[in-house]
Amino acid sequence: MRHTLKAQQFDAKLISVLFKRADELQALSIDKRRHQKLGGLLQGKMMFLVFFEPSTRTRISFAAAGQHLGMQVVSTENAQISSSLVKGESLEDTIQVLSEYQPDVIVMRHFEANAAERAAAVSGVPIINAGDGAGQHPTQALLDLYTIYREAGSMTGLNIALGTDLLHSRALRSLIYLLAKVGGNHLILVSPKELRLASDVKTYLKKRGTTFEETDKLEYALKKADVIYWNRIQKERFTGEIPPQTFVIGPQHLPLIKPEAFIMNALPRIDEILTTVDKDPRAAYFRQAGNGMFIRMALLEWTLELL
Amino acid sequence: MRHTLKAQQFDAKLISVLFKRADELQALSIDKRRHQKLGGLLQGKMMFLVFFEPSTRTRISFAAAGQHLGMQVVSTENAQISSSLVKGESLEDTIQVLSEYQPDVIVMRHFEANAAERAAAVSGVPIINAGDGAGQHPTQALLDLYTIYREAGSMTGLNIALGTDLLHSRALRSLIYLLAKVGGNHLILVSPKELRLASDVKTYLKKRGTTFEETDKLEYALKKADVIYWNRIQKERFTGEIPPQTFVIGPQHLPLIKPEAFIMNALPRIDEILTTVDKDPRAAYFRQAGNGMFIRMALLEWTLELL
Amino acid sequence: MRHTLKAQQFDAKLISVLFKRADELQALSIDKRRHQKLGGLLQGKMMFLVFFEPSTRTRISFAAAGQHLGMQVVSTENAQISSSLVKGESLEDTIQVLSEYQPDVIVMRHFEANAAERAAAVSGVPIINAGDGAGQHPTQALLDLYTIYREAGSMTGLNIALGTDLLHSRALRSLIYLLAKVGGNHLILVSPKELRLASDVKTYLKKRGTTFEETDKLEYALKKADVIYWNRIQKERFTGEIPPQTFVIGPQHLPLIKPEAFIMNALPRIDEILTTVDKDPRAAYFRQAGNGMFIRMALLEWTLELL
Repeated sequence: MRHTLKAQQFDAKLISVLFKRADELQALSIDKRRHQKLGGLLQGKMMFLVFFEPSTRTRISFAAAGQHLGMQVVSTENAQISSSLVKGESLEDTIQVLSEYQPDVIVMRHFEANAAERAAAVSGVPIINAGDGAGQHPTQALLDLYTIYREAGSMTGLNIALGTDLLHSRALRSLIYLLAKVGGNHLILVSPKELRLASDVKTYLKKRGTTFEETDKLEYALKKADVIYWNRIQKERFTGEIPPQTFVIGPQHLPLIKPEAFIMNALPRIDEILTTVDKDPRAAYFRQAGNGMFIRMALLEWTLELL
Repeated sequence: MRHTLKAQQFDAKLISVLFKRADELQALSIDKRRHQKLGGLLQGKMMFLVFFEPSTRTRISFAAAGQHLGMQVVSTENAQISSSLVKGESLEDTIQVLSEYQPDVIVMRHFEANAAERAAAVSGVPIINAGDGAGQHPTQALLDLYTIYREAGSMTGLNIALGTDLLHSRALRSLIYLLAKVGGNHLILVSPKELRLASDVKTYLKKRGTTFEETDKLEYALKKADVIYWNRIQKERFTGEIPPQTFVIGPQHLPLIKPEAFIMNALPRIDEILTTVDKDPRAAYFRQAGNGMFIRMALLEWTLELL
Repeated sequence: MRHTLKAQQFDAKLISVLFKRADELQALSIDKRRHQKLGGLLQGKMMFLVFFEPSTRTRISFAAAGQHLGMQVVSTENAQISSSLVKGESLEDTIQVLSEYQPDVIVMRHFEANAAERAAAVSGVPIINAGDGAGQHPTQALLDLYTIYREAGSMTGLNIALGTDLLHSRALRSLIYLLAKVGGNHLILVSPKELRLASDVKTYLKKRGTTFEETDKLEYALKKADVIYWNRIQKERFTGEIPPQTFVIGPQHLPLIKPEAFIMNALPRIDEILTTVDKDPRAAYFRQAGNGMFIRMALLEWTLELL
């Protein structure tokens, strides 16, 4: 069964297949006859969306991906307050029951790391991990890399500036692992001292031969970058004092940024990029969110062995 | 883009188009081959239902309207507890992300006044306001006027009794504005002194030439009225003492009411109309709710530029 | 109208029709062309799922049942927090409004006993009771009996061991009533003294001529049984001290159980059956859950007068 559990499971070949297919699906979606072009692709297939933790964005992205392709979607927003769980049912039992209802795929989000792997171990149908706590969120990592591929026209030979909470951002860490696997890029790590990338990730980068530099010079990084991936400080991950957001991208920086560069953000965006930047064509973060839906479409086709 | 943001945006001509279309849709819906008659009208179109505040009635009404017409519906009941919002995402960012998932229309309910206008300002697709806090609930106003049109066979030349919390009822105030625009009716405003219509609305009525009288004589009003729109006291709008419901319509009033008159209520109904009135054919409030679904169907067709 | 309100309403003839149809639907569902075989059966029909109490399992089972058959499903997980109810709307008004939106069936779960009967009294469309508080959960009773029929190949001539909280389990009590109606079986009631079957149910069994014995000898019961229905202690039903689960089925019991016997559980399973039993082919509880979806499919066809 084709489970999607963690970003690392995808090799370069499969990534390339998924990205090319996502491009094709984007092209079909702007066709006036979008419904006819897309709506039959997964007709008669059924997706369960089982969210043990609310996440409007990710849930709607998957639901829309499936429904644009003609799938039937059965969705739960609040699986964590269902009476079965309150009564003490294990995740494994829940998944085995849901499998019996014969979906073609279960997309699940859970608040515990490794929940998706536990689910896959007992599931009768493929599992897609839509985020499991501090663990993995593989479709976010895929959509990020896909956005680089789509916006830059390439996944190598790029200076990629990454900020600002390199210590805590799950999205950034997963992307860094994927970039190291792809290879051939240079990373510019921008953060305050206390939010620097963890040393085990740096060791990994060295081992894989991906060069990087650490800096706290925002303007330097913005000038040099071909890709700027700028995330918020993950306030929910701090128990003590939260450092202020010192690396804010605002309209004053736009003249510094290369004309062909672009700015990404995993969203939600808080104060790390000012809204006055949004109208600049290099602000790619909303397109990035849209790319997420198309990469999930391609992933659904792969999951159902139609790709 | 054809947004639906407030009741005032609809002119007499468009109102007439919507009402005639709602009548046609009602006729199709009682056809035995309902599914074939309605189900293809908006096939392949996708609606997002994004509710930042729970409202079972309105959400189900829109969902059923869309699905009867063949739309795909992606729905969220509890957008307000999603992790993105908890983390501090702005409404504008949420809407821009949702637009990227390529729905054909976003129907939204929010707890803040003007939220729908803020959403429309950034949305890539049409917004329908399904209620924004103390602000507007334009489809409620449309369905109310449509019910008068459908039950009375006319929208003018009517004595319309309105009670009982004229000060706080958003539904009544919106209807009064629409009635003033249509013109040609006489309003009988029934309420205790402390819940009378605000003076700015009365000034507006005078300016538009719609006559009205204020009274606290229930039987007088019921005898004179061709339409009786009777709403609950909006208890949630009081900080101090809540006045008792003194104007209750019960079975003893039924002989006073004209045979061709009818009783409306925006629902939920609490204690302002006794349930012993429900079986009287002039009790129109449940039909009124059903009219809401058909006016929303017509509005969806207009929104998608198919009307 | 064909409401489903309580287990007792089904007679032997209708039960037989439903079970044979559920078998047919199971056969169609494993066909490679499942979508074509099932998807047209209830196409164009609309189900409302109105849950005033969360229940992921039951809600998804109904939603999947309907969608596998091509129905449109409009669903609410949290009807109890809708603003209308908070404002004090009665269940009767809510149901009358929902009827106006023209679903073909309303499946409802409520926290109050008899809620489904109250709904049926005012509804314009058939009601299916998906559990109303301490009252009834008729589709659970049907799926349990159907599982006996399907696993044993018969509904009579069986020794049926029932444990362990015979006093509180709604599912067990409903099944016992149905078994008494079917007749011809012998019940082995296994429980600690304080959780024995209520005397009124025992009187009913005697009256209907169904033999039974009460025991606290687990191994004796397991050896004798053709069917083992083993439920958790209903902890939520105790105000005082909760008795420990003394009758746990574990792998050491498997050699005692007849090769053709099978183990059922209404789920959620807590500690009354060890997970190390799950892999044994006689562990039928997940298949039992799946049977629930098929019996609900058959019930939907009957409700819509297509069976």
